[in-house]
Amino acid sequence: MRVVRHPERARYRREVLDQILDEGLICHLGFNFEGRPYVIPTIHARDRDVVYIHGSPISRMLTTLKAGVDVCLTVTIVDGLVLARSAFSSSMNYRSAVVMGRALEVTGQEEKMRAFEAVVEHVARGRWADCRWPTEKEAAATTIVRLPIREFSAKVRSGPPKDPAEDHDLPHWAGVVPFLLATAPPEDSPDLKSGLRAPAYALRYTR
Amino acid sequence: MRVVRHPERARYRREVLDQILDEGLICHLGFNFEGRPYVIPTIHARDRDVVYIHGSPISRMLTTLKAGVDVCLTVTIVDGLVLARSAFSSSMNYRSAVVMGRALEVTGQEEKMRAFEAVVEHVARGRWADCRWPTEKEAAATTIVRLPIREFSAKVRSGPPKDPAEDHDLPHWAGVVPFLLATAPPEDSPDLKSGLRAPAYALRYTR
Repeated sequence: MRVVRHPERARYRREVLDQILDEGLICHLGFNFEGRPYVIPTIHARDRDVVYIHGSPISRMLTTLKAGVDVCLTVTIVDGLVLARSAFSSSMNYRSAVVMGRALEVTGQEEKMRAFEAVVEHVARGRWADCRWPTEKEAAATTIVRLPIREFSAKVRSGPPKDPAEDHDLPHWAGVVPFLLATAPPEDSPDLKSGLRAPAYALRYTR
Repeated sequence: MRVVRHPERARYRREVLDQILDEGLICHLGFNFEGRPYVIPTIHARDRDVVYIHGSPISRMLTTLKAGVDVCLTVTIVDGLVLARSAFSSSMNYRSAVVMGRALEVTGQEEKMRAFEAVVEHVARGRWADCRWPTEKEAAATTIVRLPIREFSAKVRSGPPKDPAEDHDLPHWAGVVPFLLATAPPEDSPDLKSGLRAPAYALRYTR
């Protein structure tokens, strides 16, 4: 997919794409259903050259996807507000990744379990070794599709605002407000067995 | 739009939708171009019963949108990770809003200026009174479309994990890792006039 607007922000290297796909917690998945576009937020997980999407077999998204339709998977990380002196030159610092193509249902049990692991580890690294794995029945009650990373692009903006010289003397502050991911202390489940403490990957969650 | 999966999470009240549209900084906009779905991250801004989208007149998104095609605008706020004892019962706390329909180009200069204001205030409340407004030339170099809020839905999950009773004795921690929006101290533009300080809406940015 070719970036039309701001081609200087385009990135076509796989390592840039992979970094965005891996750091972004969720994606927004676009597809057509009954002739109209839908955009659904969902968890994704990359494993080498594919992205896995999972969900309920009765969801509109999964029933549509596994039929092999065109999809567009977009992951966006907002890094900050770019406040130029003028509204017109203001912008955002961001990194976005787009993968287009057709997804196929994962039917092999081995790959399905690898996909579960990829999803859990994408959400919280370290959790797969510290949770109950899906049973056969649960695996059967989950549809997983695989989107190959073939057609893709990324787009990155960073740095300060770019006000034209004639705006430099205006009395408005200009700069960047950087965004960070922050978490509050983990909240124990009300039915938690006494003596169990929140693990490190929950206490010091990072992406 | 009817929510298929987890109908108990569906919300069809406008105030719930509006709150999500207003709090979410960006949306993901889905549309078809040459018969394929695209999902593009972009700034949106609600003004009463419409959502404004703006961009360059040469962008693929705006040239396609202003032709009056079907679009799906989705805003998602992730509120936390829901780590159940089992991978299968794990989830996310989130709020998402979806508006579907066709967008129309805003051509009236008065509405166009209102839309600029809505966008700037959506990004940083207080900034419109503290920036240079678009000139006629800049307004002409910006395409703005208006999506009416007619067909919409929202989806909300909150609260702790719901492990089945037979999992309660497993040795895995269960609970929620709450997500917060955090910002770092504003970074002055390198060309900032001396004596200008970052304003309160940048120093203590909230949504």
